[in-house]
Amino acid sequence: MNFIKSTALAGLLVAGVAVGSASAEEKTYTIGVSVPTADHGWTGGVGFFAQQAVERLEKAYPNLKFVLATAPDSTRQAADLEDMVTTRDIDALVVLPGDPDAMTASIKKVKDAGKWVTVIDRALSQEGIEDLYVAGDNPGLGATTAKYFKEALPHGGNIVVLRGLPIPIDKQRYDAFMEGIAGTEIKVLDNQFANWNRDDGYKVMQDFLTKHSKIDAVWCQDDDILIGVLKALKEAGREDEMWVVGGAGMNQIVKMVAAGSKQVPVDVSYNPNMVATAIDLTALHFVANAQVDGTMIINSTLITKENAAQFDYPNTPF
Amino acid sequence: MNFIKSTALAGLLVAGVAVGSASAEEKTYTIGVSVPTADHGWTGGVGFFAQQAVERLEKAYPNLKFVLATAPDSTRQAADLEDMVTTRDIDALVVLPGDPDAMTASIKKVKDAGKWVTVIDRALSQEGIEDLYVAGDNPGLGATTAKYFKEALPHGGNIVVLRGLPIPIDKQRYDAFMEGIAGTEIKVLDNQFANWNRDDGYKVMQDFLTKHSKIDAVWCQDDDILIGVLKALKEAGREDEMWVVGGAGMNQIVKMVAAGSKQVPVDVSYNPNMVATAIDLTALHFVANAQVDGTMIINSTLITKENAAQFDYPNTPF
Repeated sequence: MNFIKSTALAGLLVAGVAVGSASAEEKTYTIGVSVPTADHGWTGGVGFFAQQAVERLEKAYPNLKFVLATAPDSTRQAADLEDMVTTRDIDALVVLPGDPDAMTASIKKVKDAGKWVTVIDRALSQEGIEDLYVAGDNPGLGATTAKYFKEALPHGGNIVVLRGLPIPIDKQRYDAFMEGIAGTEIKVLDNQFANWNRDDGYKVMQDFLTKHSKIDAVWCQDDDILIGVLKALKEAGREDEMWVVGGAGMNQIVKMVAAGSKQVPVDVSYNPNMVATAIDLTALHFVANAQVDGTMIINSTLITKENAAQFDYPNTPF
Repeated sequence: MNFIKSTALAGLLVAGVAVGSASAEEKTYTIGVSVPTADHGWTGGVGFFAQQAVERLEKAYPNLKFVLATAPDSTRQAADLEDMVTTRDIDALVVLPGDPDAMTASIKKVKDAGKWVTVIDRALSQEGIEDLYVAGDNPGLGATTAKYFKEALPHGGNIVVLRGLPIPIDKQRYDAFMEGIAGTEIKVLDNQFANWNRDDGYKVMQDFLTKHSKIDAVWCQDDDILIGVLKALKEAGREDEMWVVGGAGMNQIVKMVAAGSKQVPVDVSYNPNMVATAIDLTALHFVANAQVDGTMIINSTLITKENAAQFDYPNTPF
């Protein structure tokens, strides 16, 4: 450390630091991390970034141990949580619930057992359970996208909307988008849930293409859905008719934006590496004198040709 | 790391992790930390926790270097920032501005020079400059305190209010408190700025005691002000007439709450160790694949006799 100026305070405090560090490292803490099995690119990214964070933190802080579990459904995720508490004796849980409504009771049990609880991305159906909530800015994602649509369609146009899953964060995105384009000549021809996955994105877009002969733009809020949309457009030979905006910041989409794609002109950040941020903040509760209970909202930023480089995470699958 | 179950994905990703870590550690990054000189207990805590975080992070991540500076006023803090950019070649700035209005232009210059900027506690007078904002929940501090006052004074009463500095976070606290007690029989006899320091807390409370013969409770929103208030009450021999609620979670006040003090029955958390959280999140931007631009709001929780132990940070000066 390099002090611009040394102060009496600085000298005085060094002893305190040494004592604090020693006592903090005496005890070993176990942090359980529970995330959905990779059923699409975004959840695949979650698993990757979680593992990367765990390996980095175990190296940085030898008194931290981690238990990482991926679950294909809520039954399995609930069983993982129970196992973490009863068998693995975790001190904290970091959880991205696949289905937040179905998982609320199980996560509350972990909290009631006296464990620290960090929830990522998908808010539980009951408030006040978790110590820390980490998510992207979902209303911001909708608002940022709406702002782009208004600028790109100054005279209005016909658009279709593909939504995620019927859970609160989808509603936050959708409501903010609709509020953002209110009062413009932009007309939403149709909106359907595509469940944040490629196959459903493909099917829903095929349906939209059958029903609507003139579409100017597509908002599908998610880069996995977007890949399905692009496939449907290609097969229908209507690639030049409309442009498409997803969301998340998937590598291959960021690269299209960086290359100046007309079909995918922008993206909006909502990166699965928020799981790393959540694991790190949770770790901080055990390795540092730092209050970290609260809410961390990561910006949902418009990714353009100009700033795309900073959203491209090299050597990662997302 | 301990996998509950191994997956094909997990095996596949190990190689990617290794590559990512290696490339992340090749480059050295310098993070400048600028905080006010300790002019009261809270800023003293900021300096302590900043130093502790820096020492921990330099050990955990050898490719991170820090420059830590404390400044007694805005002129000096602005000079520190300029020095960090021009001489120290920082990659990021973590700043707790002593006077956020006076420091906004200087902090904007750091951002315009292409550096990452994290602002702590005191919001700048222009939005959108910083990459990351870390603060306690100031409206929450006012609302949580108001809720306690309503419960403790169910039939109303006379109270006096000592405020901080005339900057936005004081207004957020005050407005939320006033909104919280609206419609009750709680009467605010007087409110004055006490500038988050002990001497002004003492003087303002002396003035209140001279002017008002019957006071049931005091809200002074800050534990440094509170120490001045207690001194004034003791000297006036009116210690048993009223109870006092501060804010921050200073060690000696938390210990009073834990001991069941009638004079200081509760406190509300707003710990200066938020500086550690801010430095850690900033570090994460350089050592991990993690998006950390956004807003982190740390809970302002009511500290009672029952939960006081978890707000007592051993071996720290605050």
